[in-house]
Amino acid sequence: MQIVPSSVERLISELGRLPGIGPRSAERLAFYLLKSDSLRSQTLGAALESLHAGVTSCRICHNFAETQLCAVCSSPTRETSVVAVVEEPFDVVALEKTGLFKGLYHVLGGVISPIDGVGPDQLEILSLLRRVEQGDINEVILATNPSLEAESTAMYIRAQLEPTGVKLTRLARGLPVGGALEYADQITLGRALQGRQSF
Amino acid sequence: MQIVPSSVERLISELGRLPGIGPRSAERLAFYLLKSDSLRSQTLGAALESLHAGVTSCRICHNFAETQLCAVCSSPTRETSVVAVVEEPFDVVALEKTGLFKGLYHVLGGVISPIDGVGPDQLEILSLLRRVEQGDINEVILATNPSLEAESTAMYIRAQLEPTGVKLTRLARGLPVGGALEYADQITLGRALQGRQSF
Repeated sequence: MQIVPSSVERLISELGRLPGIGPRSAERLAFYLLKSDSLRSQTLGAALESLHAGVTSCRICHNFAETQLCAVCSSPTRETSVVAVVEEPFDVVALEKTGLFKGLYHVLGGVISPIDGVGPDQLEILSLLRRVEQGDINEVILATNPSLEAESTAMYIRAQLEPTGVKLTRLARGLPVGGALEYADQITLGRALQGRQSF
Repeated sequence: MQIVPSSVERLISELGRLPGIGPRSAERLAFYLLKSDSLRSQTLGAALESLHAGVTSCRICHNFAETQLCAVCSSPTRETSVVAVVEEPFDVVALEKTGLFKGLYHVLGGVISPIDGVGPDQLEILSLLRRVEQGDINEVILATNPSLEAESTAMYIRAQLEPTGVKLTRLARGLPVGGALEYADQITLGRALQGRQSF
């Protein structure tokens, strides 16, 4: 016997396919929405349906954009001589939230991962090289994640960019703020030691 | 500067208003959906928009229903002499999952809560009394939650139904399966002791 109406069942199954939402949470959310005013689920539904429609990729840096250029590339106040290379548009959001970076971005669209069939050609590495070759860029910050694939991607990019003579830097590795020495893993602690700064 | 496109921003804010989803999870979900095929968010959006359209309230027991009667009330195999009184349709789902209850339900639609302005008249108590008065029901199980408001609601219902002479029972209170004596709160343990069963 089907106790839950099929429209609710369908929502539960769709919600349950989202990352971090298990069957119980999906059920709870669906029931919550069912109890709430139908305007709530209508608004959320409309927001979901129009999600991709309003988003395109920046022609220059491949970040999210609503028009041909993203908000960063089209801003007249950014330093155009520094480019931070990140994996995903979400990393741009994270760096922007620090409020400390005033340069431009270049979104790779992932990392080199042979196991997933992602080679350098699937990423925006050639377009990065073209941007650097145009000559306005003095520094490229490799702001990739501290993962194994990202490290090798960064290494590959370094090999590609070195001939251009551009200054290459990367994000500091060390203890996270609020982290304690005793809980840091040995690699992080090792990097923090190697990268120690004058005080 | 608005880094996140407005369609994404809107989805993040809508998702963030769901219970148990904070701003970070909302962001993560929105970015995940943005990276996925647009069919994913379209399907979820459609499921949300049609959620309320496919659901109505059962004319007899006020459970979820897709037609005039819910799946339980319209089933020919249920015992019509036993009725479980629950607070919400979700409680019906929980009881059905046990597979141990073969009777009918009566969904109150909440509990008496003067602080929220919910009195007996806002709940389906009168319709329960009418059902019992029609005479086919031998037993009413008060399957309300073990909360303070639900206890007083159950007490109110008992007072209403006692004159009809129907058998009134309620769910056993005791140790949850998998729970340990030492971690049980004293009220639960007290109830388990009072309600001890022959072995």
